[in-house]
Amino acid sequence: MQSIIKVSTCSRLLHTQKYTIKYARALVSNSINLSNFEKLFPKREEFQVRHIGPREHEQFEMLETIGFKSLDELTRSAVPEKICLNEPLKIEEPVNEYELIKRIREVSEKNQVWRSYIGMGYHNCSVPHTILRNIFENPGWTTQYTPYQPEISQGRLEGLLNYQTMICELTGMEVANASLLDESTAAAEAMSLTYRHTRRKKMFLSDKLHPQTINVVVTRATSLGLTIEVGDVFKVDLAKKDIAGILLQYPDTTGQIRDFSNVVEQAHVNGTLVCAASDLLSLTLIRPPSDFSIDICIGTSQRFGVPLGYGGPHAGFFACRRSLVRLMPGRMIGVTRDANGVDAYRLALQTREQHIRRDKATSNICTAQALLANMSAMYAVYHGPSGLRDIATRVHNLTAVLAGGLKAGNNKVQTEHFFDTITVLPRDDQGTVRKRATKAKVNLRYNDDGSIGIAFDETTTLKDVDDLLKIFGSKMTAKEVVESDSKGIYSIIDSPFMRTTPYLVHPVFNTYHSETRIVRYMKSLENKDVSLVHSMIPLGSCTMKLNSTTEMMPSSFKGFTDIHPFAPIEQAEGYQQLFTELEKDLCAITGYDRISFQPNSGAQGEYAGLRAIQCYHESRGDAHRQVCLIPVSAHGTNPASAQMAGMRVEPIHVRKDGSVDIVHLQEMIDKYKVNLSCLMITYPSTNGVFEETIADICEMVHNGGGQVYLDGANMNAQVGLCRPGDYGSDVSHLNLHKTFCIPHGGGGPGVGPIGVKKHLAPFLPSHPIINPLADDTDGGKQSLGTISAAPYGSSAILPISWAYIKMMGPKGLRKATQVAILNANYMSKRLEGHYVTLYKGTTGLVAHEFIIDVRDFKKTANVEAVDIAKRLMDYGFHAPTMSWPVTGTLMIEPTESEDKPELDRFCEALISIRNEIREIENGKLDSQINPLKMAPHTQEHVVCSEWNRPYTREQAAFPAPFVKTDTKIWPSVGRIDDIYGDKNLFCTCPQILPKY
Amino acid sequence: MQSIIKVSTCSRLLHTQKYTIKYARALVSNSINLSNFEKLFPKREEFQVRHIGPREHEQFEMLETIGFKSLDELTRSAVPEKICLNEPLKIEEPVNEYELIKRIREVSEKNQVWRSYIGMGYHNCSVPHTILRNIFENPGWTTQYTPYQPEISQGRLEGLLNYQTMICELTGMEVANASLLDESTAAAEAMSLTYRHTRRKKMFLSDKLHPQTINVVVTRATSLGLTIEVGDVFKVDLAKKDIAGILLQYPDTTGQIRDFSNVVEQAHVNGTLVCAASDLLSLTLIRPPSDFSIDICIGTSQRFGVPLGYGGPHAGFFACRRSLVRLMPGRMIGVTRDANGVDAYRLALQTREQHIRRDKATSNICTAQALLANMSAMYAVYHGPSGLRDIATRVHNLTAVLAGGLKAGNNKVQTEHFFDTITVLPRDDQGTVRKRATKAKVNLRYNDDGSIGIAFDETTTLKDVDDLLKIFGSKMTAKEVVESDSKGIYSIIDSPFMRTTPYLVHPVFNTYHSETRIVRYMKSLENKDVSLVHSMIPLGSCTMKLNSTTEMMPSSFKGFTDIHPFAPIEQAEGYQQLFTELEKDLCAITGYDRISFQPNSGAQGEYAGLRAIQCYHESRGDAHRQVCLIPVSAHGTNPASAQMAGMRVEPIHVRKDGSVDIVHLQEMIDKYKVNLSCLMITYPSTNGVFEETIADICEMVHNGGGQVYLDGANMNAQVGLCRPGDYGSDVSHLNLHKTFCIPHGGGGPGVGPIGVKKHLAPFLPSHPIINPLADDTDGGKQSLGTISAAPYGSSAILPISWAYIKMMGPKGLRKATQVAILNANYMSKRLEGHYVTLYKGTTGLVAHEFIIDVRDFKKTANVEAVDIAKRLMDYGFHAPTMSWPVTGTLMIEPTESEDKPELDRFCEALISIRNEIREIENGKLDSQINPLKMAPHTQEHVVCSEWNRPYTREQAAFPAPFVKTDTKIWPSVGRIDDIYGDKNLFCTCPQILPKY
Repeated sequence: MQSIIKVSTCSRLLHTQKYTIKYARALVSNSINLSNFEKLFPKREEFQVRHIGPREHEQFEMLETIGFKSLDELTRSAVPEKICLNEPLKIEEPVNEYELIKRIREVSEKNQVWRSYIGMGYHNCSVPHTILRNIFENPGWTTQYTPYQPEISQGRLEGLLNYQTMICELTGMEVANASLLDESTAAAEAMSLTYRHTRRKKMFLSDKLHPQTINVVVTRATSLGLTIEVGDVFKVDLAKKDIAGILLQYPDTTGQIRDFSNVVEQAHVNGTLVCAASDLLSLTLIRPPSDFSIDICIGTSQRFGVPLGYGGPHAGFFACRRSLVRLMPGRMIGVTRDANGVDAYRLALQTREQHIRRDKATSNICTAQALLANMSAMYAVYHGPSGLRDIATRVHNLTAVLAGGLKAGNNKVQTEHFFDTITVLPRDDQGTVRKRATKAKVNLRYNDDGSIGIAFDETTTLKDVDDLLKIFGSKMTAKEVVESDSKGIYSIIDSPFMRTTPYLVHPVFNTYHSETRIVRYMKSLENKDVSLVHSMIPLGSCTMKLNSTTEMMPSSFKGFTDIHPFAPIEQAEGYQQLFTELEKDLCAITGYDRISFQPNSGAQGEYAGLRAIQCYHESRGDAHRQVCLIPVSAHGTNPASAQMAGMRVEPIHVRKDGSVDIVHLQEMIDKYKVNLSCLMITYPSTNGVFEETIADICEMVHNGGGQVYLDGANMNAQVGLCRPGDYGSDVSHLNLHKTFCIPHGGGGPGVGPIGVKKHLAPFLPSHPIINPLADDTDGGKQSLGTISAAPYGSSAILPISWAYIKMMGPKGLRKATQVAILNANYMSKRLEGHYVTLYKGTTGLVAHEFIIDVRDFKKTANVEAVDIAKRLMDYGFHAPTMSWPVTGTLMIEPTESEDKPELDRFCEALISIRNEIREIENGKLDSQINPLKMAPHTQEHVVCSEWNRPYTREQAAFPAPFVKTDTKIWPSVGRIDDIYGDKNLFCTCPQILPKY
Repeated sequence: MQSIIKVSTCSRLLHTQKYTIKYARALVSNSINLSNFEKLFPKREEFQVRHIGPREHEQFEMLETIGFKSLDELTRSAVPEKICLNEPLKIEEPVNEYELIKRIREVSEKNQVWRSYIGMGYHNCSVPHTILRNIFENPGWTTQYTPYQPEISQGRLEGLLNYQTMICELTGMEVANASLLDESTAAAEAMSLTYRHTRRKKMFLSDKLHPQTINVVVTRATSLGLTIEVGDVFKVDLAKKDIAGILLQYPDTTGQIRDFSNVVEQAHVNGTLVCAASDLLSLTLIRPPSDFSIDICIGTSQRFGVPLGYGGPHAGFFACRRSLVRLMPGRMIGVTRDANGVDAYRLALQTREQHIRRDKATSNICTAQALLANMSAMYAVYHGPSGLRDIATRVHNLTAVLAGGLKAGNNKVQTEHFFDTITVLPRDDQGTVRKRATKAKVNLRYNDDGSIGIAFDETTTLKDVDDLLKIFGSKMTAKEVVESDSKGIYSIIDSPFMRTTPYLVHPVFNTYHSETRIVRYMKSLENKDVSLVHSMIPLGSCTMKLNSTTEMMPSSFKGFTDIHPFAPIEQAEGYQQLFTELEKDLCAITGYDRISFQPNSGAQGEYAGLRAIQCYHESRGDAHRQVCLIPVSAHGTNPASAQMAGMRVEPIHVRKDGSVDIVHLQEMIDKYKVNLSCLMITYPSTNGVFEETIADICEMVHNGGGQVYLDGANMNAQVGLCRPGDYGSDVSHLNLHKTFCIPHGGGGPGVGPIGVKKHLAPFLPSHPIINPLADDTDGGKQSLGTISAAPYGSSAILPISWAYIKMMGPKGLRKATQVAILNANYMSKRLEGHYVTLYKGTTGLVAHEFIIDVRDFKKTANVEAVDIAKRLMDYGFHAPTMSWPVTGTLMIEPTESEDKPELDRFCEALISIRNEIREIENGKLDSQINPLKMAPHTQEHVVCSEWNRPYTREQAAFPAPFVKTDTKIWPSVGRIDDIYGDKNLFCTCPQILPKY
């Protein structure tokens, strides 16, 4: 319960209100003099008041604390004058929340939802409403951060472990990761793996892969200098032993199911790895690709309960043999134990990842599609194996009846063995069929050879079959087909492809089938995890700000969710309008000329941006320009992306104050003058400082013939104050999931569109089916290729960023940035005397984040950054970014959405921890058994009868006055043992009883 | 974490799956013989599989336990043969969840959302999206039960206390309750209060009240034998000292604001109470009615963030002087302390309520509109006093400009002082204006005298003013009006009515104004409360079953939320279709001929049903038939309703086995033969038994010239098995919030439509504005009057019940009932040897609920029902119904939605508690300081360094293996001290700091 308020606070409030009334009266009195209409109808409340945390009076108090009179004065001092934007952003005046929903609904309704049988890796599905509402529309799930702090993330870690288990069991593979961005990038990652494994530079791709997969793999291969051959996998010449891997599809893009046993056998004899792209729903009926002894299996889990959303976001999956696990890209959940020996989940094998291995990493991927993977896993939990099999059987039977009816109507069904997709050579010509289909608002896949592809899904009905039969000129109904065909309808289940092995046998997939049970399961997982609905998550460089309901709502609108990404573009008018408007706004904000929405993560954006630079150089005959300069303080993804883009990474020193060593930079520019491709730099710096020299740096690079790639991770410190496009950058990716309010979803989706200056625009990503550059001068002929499976990446969540910009307006956006900077500086100031802020700018200010140095405590008190991070959990807080960019430190980014009381609580927690450290230093607390080393404290610890620690239970679990029993957030396990987990790698659900 | 699964379970699962595959194969093989199309396309999964908890194999295990082979065998045995329904329900075959949403969306789109300026107590508003999503659309809030167990309900209790505080501060009154059903019933309750207080039988109603309020009060007064006079309150003759109360409206229904000081003064001199109906938003600008020294203030809080929803549900409010508090109807939240002396919230003064005082109760009301009251309170928390004032100022200014423009256009504005509503005598005739308005899709209030009412609200824009000016033939725009009027626009703020006192000064209304903060506040409240998302809530007679997402979704559809209840009926075609279809289905289920949806709670339904009976008798010249027989075991609401309906209650004995004493019944029928009105009876009985004699009982009553009112609270044991209309009942109310899946919302909304046999149909409720009986033979001329403010009660949540019936279909509904009966019997059986089931039917079976007798433990172990109830919290469970219908017992109703593992856990908890009681009996546990007496245990208790109890901390907080540290549900306060709270009544927010 609460403590009694001080009388002074009460009277202050009373005073404020009296003032308000006086003010209102004055306002109305003024309005009698009607010279100003605005006085009578002041602008309606703006959204920015809801988005920005600190109230006006708090802002003044905080400004006072750090010695400034106004936000403008503060940011004039923080941001180098040279780069300041001295005019308002050229975006619309703010729209209120209710108007906005009206407007975006109208936009969504411009999209026409036709029945789509296009397939190609995207299938409509029935999203269980309870999963939609309780996960996708629930901030308790959407606002979680990546589970780097496993003790307060066991819920989503369990969800993702379910996902991995589901993928393993359906594909038959031994290990799977916690999802990748989409099927095509998963294929590209698989190809990279075969290269890393075999060191061979040639790949073979089946010509029966989805076209976007071929394009993405080819694009990726090009930059790595690999050769791709596309053809018939049954005719590939393996004897030369020069092929790293074969990528094939099962069932293939035409719908055909084939036996690849011989191909795989031959491949293995010749040291070639084989990767199969597959379809999860089909695998509930047909033999898993593991039956052919393949090495890797990839695909998408979209059709498992995630809407089409015009291409994304969905979770791609990646599974492989256990022997390849350390080469597997992406995040993986593993089972380990906590400090008490209790089983617990955590991210496994992180040492493979780029934040450790930089340009030697297995991949640049650091985002998963956690939210969508969790939805798909929950879909499998909800339906269970027999539910999934029922769905698949129905889809298959409908397809079989369609095939029977088409044959009976003298169409030629080219697909011998199929699950849900057939390719048909129509009796009438393609044009006629197309005309009929269009009239019926039906989308089919029209192949160049005159054939037509038809793919069914969970939502297909018998009426749909009847309609399709009519469209193909057959006179029979589905029912008549069934009744007339004496030989019986073809069924895969009678074929040698029928699956005979069980799957999803774990209790988790066999327990939560009533809605009551699945709701409780989802809630129990949600309640284990700390998210933004509990307290601030001050992650340096990750910008965990408010994800408002109004921004989130449109992503559930039918007009956005139900469009196939390859539907004819005229059906997606609403989306196209959204893209155009968002592009215009983002250009106004960044100073760039064009935006590509295709990259569906920050890392993809980096890769795409660097590729655009390379293509630009190539177009000018400068293909030799391959050196990418990267300051050593850069995020590990930077060098990993540069390596993937085919560049040679050369590090640039940073000075003692954390800024780029300009002298060394110039030396390196001079050294690599001929081969200099670009500089990759983050601004404000990863150290949280607005470096004065940024404009000069850009100029130096340009003078050296290089381009500037500015990492957009820290855009939240710039919006409305300065624009990369103005001070010299040529290209940036924009983490819409940081600065522009797309929630983190527990580790994805991420969205990383790139902005470029005009000269780089011709090289932006294109797409083989729907070309985003179609209207450009050269129609994308010079494009860098294809980055993601979907033409516009994660389209379905772009309304979030669109809405944020529209509701904030030019002033609101600028103010948000200013308050983000104010919040960081206020916290840094409040921690003075307790912690040292490692880097500050020349004016003594930090940008929107700052690093506190805790390295000395190792010596003075045996305390490391991780101990502070874990101890913060006992105070109810998620730790800041740990050991990055400087090992052994903590980086705090409060964002503008946190108000003063929350900042104060966080500071008080840190100060209280500092006092505990002091007690260790003084010898008042033991250096081994103390609240920091033992943190976090679970209920098991403190409710135990035995308590033999040299500090109290209260000190353990309720270490500050604001940690109260009625709102306490408990870590669900004790400190995780990472080393044990990596040594005993276990990445599927342990055989344990489900929890309740 | 979890324990290792037994190998046997695993292999059973494997076996099951292999079987499934074999089965699927067989299915397809069969399907080759295509004689049966159904085999290839079996019916799609039905919703009932999701709604019903136990899986098929669990049902068999449970049937085995209680000795039956099938559900049919069980229910044939449980339900008396004589009343069995021997045919399937005549309702549609089940619709799946996705089809259902499509269909109901189409229905909703048949409603036309016009701009409505009708007012009359219903105003459009902007529902804050974050409140909509995080409260209204969140099962964590909607599935809570009434907070009878305060230790696990502190969240919603705090929300409701905020509501009471808001009402008190805005109205200026001293105490307020936690909401009533709507404004009109609140007015009726106020009138009853004045009668109870003064014992005078005459009331005076202002003719400037909303017409529906007059009708509801008159209807209510009629049955109580009170006289109502309607007229000008400034001319009322008080000198006779025969008037109990005056009810007036401020601002009144025409929009006028008047000073009632003199009226009130005169009234008080003559011993008359004064009640004002008022408008919350206006009270942020104008003087509160308390300034006139009124005694009671009532109204609706709909416009505070609750959608129109065609009339409901919304929260009505009731506030009064402190001296009247013990006469105040409805629920009230009070502040008290817990066992440790910590401040805590709970329902106060429950002794006023009908479950204690029966026909002497202050009112029959036992439902509040908790969910809606919480939304409204949160709306005030979100906007705060200055935000509300800004909204009100804008609304008022718009109205003032409209009035100015209308005057300038030679229309006569009749309202001198107004807030947001004006009445206008148009320059052109009403018909002309109406034609223009209709063309512009604008609804106005057309008065019989040719004048037109216009009421503005939060959503009104300047463009709306322009459009209205055009409609009224004015040539000016709003802007021109403002600029041209040299005298200045009229403003209430310059009048003597301007409010000068502050309001909402408590920190809770001045803290949570950013979205981040309000989301955390809502989540922190939600997480204190146990709801169906955590565990079963087995409340006897309250049927806490699944409220599925699919059922809930339509209540957020714009076509349902945005319709004014008094919009012309042709704009509500969708609603009318919904009512027609739901009526048809409910008739098929109950055997009745007509349904009225007007009663918006079970108690209202009872009252309406009894009134229909009275009107029926009157129509036959039997006005003297006024005796209502009620078994002593009946719910307290029954006698309270009968008293309100003007009946004399005579109790009927029950026999030792809990069944109605037929001999006594016959005696009473004979005794009151001439004056017998009806019998009011619950079936299955409140004791949870299908009494064999029900059909005979009905016949006996009919033979005595009486009618049978069958309380529908236990319909969940009957649907599909038997029908009240078949075995002799004439009328029932149906608790749609029990049997038909409307969630309890933490104590409301409730919905209580009544079903009647044909002969009672002419007497159903009518309405002065939109008459639901308009199409009936006599157009409602014989109607009992008006029961609720809205013509169709809580229309906006009727889609929930509609959806439930449509998705379950005839078989699913029947099966749900059967499983409800199975679950209850299984639990009763499992508890055998530990607890005695108090009543069983002749076949040894209970119905869908059962009573366990714990009275003996008082003697053997000093343990009472309340101790068991509180101890259950430590196990993570909400207690069953306590001390009703039999004092000192517990009544358990599991419902069909709970599966076997959950039932088992609950039984294990009860058995474990029984063992604890045994240890007290044995002397192993102390009889005062033991886990039951000390329950519930909070974190404060068990994390405390000092622990001096004779049992362990683990035993206190983790008393069973299934109570785990990572899913533990903690009571947020210790055991509540009710007596202290009632002695020190405090019903507004204490001056404490807000929680975080």
